[in-house]
Amino acid sequence: MTKHPSSDESPVLGIDLGGTKILAAIVDPGGKIVRTAKKKTRAELGGEQILDRIVDVAKEVTQKADLSLDSLAGVGIGAPGQIDFETGTIVYAPNLGWKNVALVKHLREALGLPVALDNDVNAVAVAEHRWGAAKGIDDFIAISVGTGVGSGLFIGGKLHHGFNGTAGEIGHMIIDRDGPPWPASNRGCLEAMASRTAIAQRLEKAMAKGKKTILTEIAGTKASDIRSKVLRQALEAKDRLVTKEINRASRILGKMIGSVINLLGPEMIVLGGGVMEACGDHMLPIIDHVARETAISSSADHVKIVVSKLGDDAGILGAAALVGDG
Amino acid sequence: MTKHPSSDESPVLGIDLGGTKILAAIVDPGGKIVRTAKKKTRAELGGEQILDRIVDVAKEVTQKADLSLDSLAGVGIGAPGQIDFETGTIVYAPNLGWKNVALVKHLREALGLPVALDNDVNAVAVAEHRWGAAKGIDDFIAISVGTGVGSGLFIGGKLHHGFNGTAGEIGHMIIDRDGPPWPASNRGCLEAMASRTAIAQRLEKAMAKGKKTILTEIAGTKASDIRSKVLRQALEAKDRLVTKEINRASRILGKMIGSVINLLGPEMIVLGGGVMEACGDHMLPIIDHVARETAISSSADHVKIVVSKLGDDAGILGAAALVGDG
Repeated sequence: MTKHPSSDESPVLGIDLGGTKILAAIVDPGGKIVRTAKKKTRAELGGEQILDRIVDVAKEVTQKADLSLDSLAGVGIGAPGQIDFETGTIVYAPNLGWKNVALVKHLREALGLPVALDNDVNAVAVAEHRWGAAKGIDDFIAISVGTGVGSGLFIGGKLHHGFNGTAGEIGHMIIDRDGPPWPASNRGCLEAMASRTAIAQRLEKAMAKGKKTILTEIAGTKASDIRSKVLRQALEAKDRLVTKEINRASRILGKMIGSVINLLGPEMIVLGGGVMEACGDHMLPIIDHVARETAISSSADHVKIVVSKLGDDAGILGAAALVGDG
Repeated sequence: MTKHPSSDESPVLGIDLGGTKILAAIVDPGGKIVRTAKKKTRAELGGEQILDRIVDVAKEVTQKADLSLDSLAGVGIGAPGQIDFETGTIVYAPNLGWKNVALVKHLREALGLPVALDNDVNAVAVAEHRWGAAKGIDDFIAISVGTGVGSGLFIGGKLHHGFNGTAGEIGHMIIDRDGPPWPASNRGCLEAMASRTAIAQRLEKAMAKGKKTILTEIAGTKASDIRSKVLRQALEAKDRLVTKEINRASRILGKMIGSVINLLGPEMIVLGGGVMEACGDHMLPIIDHVARETAISSSADHVKIVVSKLGDDAGILGAAALVGDG
């Protein structure tokens, strides 16, 4: 195999593969984004076409940065869905329409570079460890609160994949056994109670019952239109309904985080994702308070709970950080 | 320091330190108990006296086995309470009346042997890994269901202590945020809903309300008299009230175990402790079913959920297994 430059010295290519768009960036060894490029995923075109689009955007961003593929240390890709780490295959990714796609092999052959693959939430944890809030921290949990809720676990300085490569599914943990049902998951799971989707659905219901809120003006009455930035606007306008729902979700997140602290005893919790990015300054004090109340005292006294500083770049930095990690 | 024989070749001394009794055993390298000895803890006598009693029972069992202390590879001790692993100190153990007791230093000086200390639930996990159900399994959780509920986590072939040495507190994780309050822990935590203490308290209340059960004949109406063996007797007699409560606790354990599988992706769950020892054959099918229903499918398909075979000897074997582990 060709020898490639090291990711300690040379830039890498990070690809954040999502159901609606593909983001690519050249990232330097210090974690600075040099250039970016973007394409729509167009999952409806099918698996082969998506692979072509990934390769296209990868070549495009390299060119835009005036680099050749040869000069890169490698490609990191953060992807949704279930991954077989031994073969570098996406076993199942419903929002890409993929089953058993040999993503690593395909990109390695198309780009002639080493390829590192992980799921998007794990990738973010690696970026937090390498360039973010968890630099130098060996035991931490990076939790992403957005459309869904997921997490990446660092244990003893390493990303923890678990026996089947599926560890970190904090969104599918139950926090209220009598809570609401949730598609493809458990009644009262964290995702059913504190994801943006869950918050938006509760707000939609409240509006349908005639509750007053600024949302009707700024976003309408449909759950799908209540994005994280809309929630932030409503918080800033001191909207009572939205504030109540966000506070409720924050307390539930705090209870789950405190519970997980009791199980794992991490040094740090890093909170990211769209909801935290938009509403973190409002939510953090509540999450922090409830988590410490829930955690056993020796953990409550020491654990650090912070909001990620990677912001919108978390996904792409995560993908880039995978290169050279383990 | 004197060179001591290796625990691969020579017997070790295991001490299971509890609030009511101190158990000591000589255990051979294959995990066979050679001799045992026992003393009441008599915590009311105070810290110094307990230390003396530990040393006495250690010497007694060595003598009973016709061995000299010199011939042992070391001493392992499983203790309740919060431990400072760097100094080998019991920081706080309410049921021993201990604060900041330098247990490792004291025993090392009194017995002239290397001393390994961990909490009782972690010690059991080490025994499961060395001699029990989890032999050869690198990622598993040993859960103990008794007076309380606790766990020991193996991750990547090593016991996971967490940042403050307090990992594994599954009993303090919340499974029902609207559940009953629990002393020194969280409303709706696992211990409040599935420990023997919780089960017995619910049975006591039901009896006070006039519910019929065989318990009134075989154990009386006080929660403190409803021991695990009494629960087993009632199950065997097909007592409806006890069966209902045990089934409920089993379902709650299943939901928590499924949740924790989603977070950690272990290969195996080993269930032990007084309740599982007595009622495991009845509870396991329910726990197994609900846990797999709760876990994401790729984990549900692969994880093994078993009842410990170490039985009553788990504590003492756990203590012994600590010698030479890490």
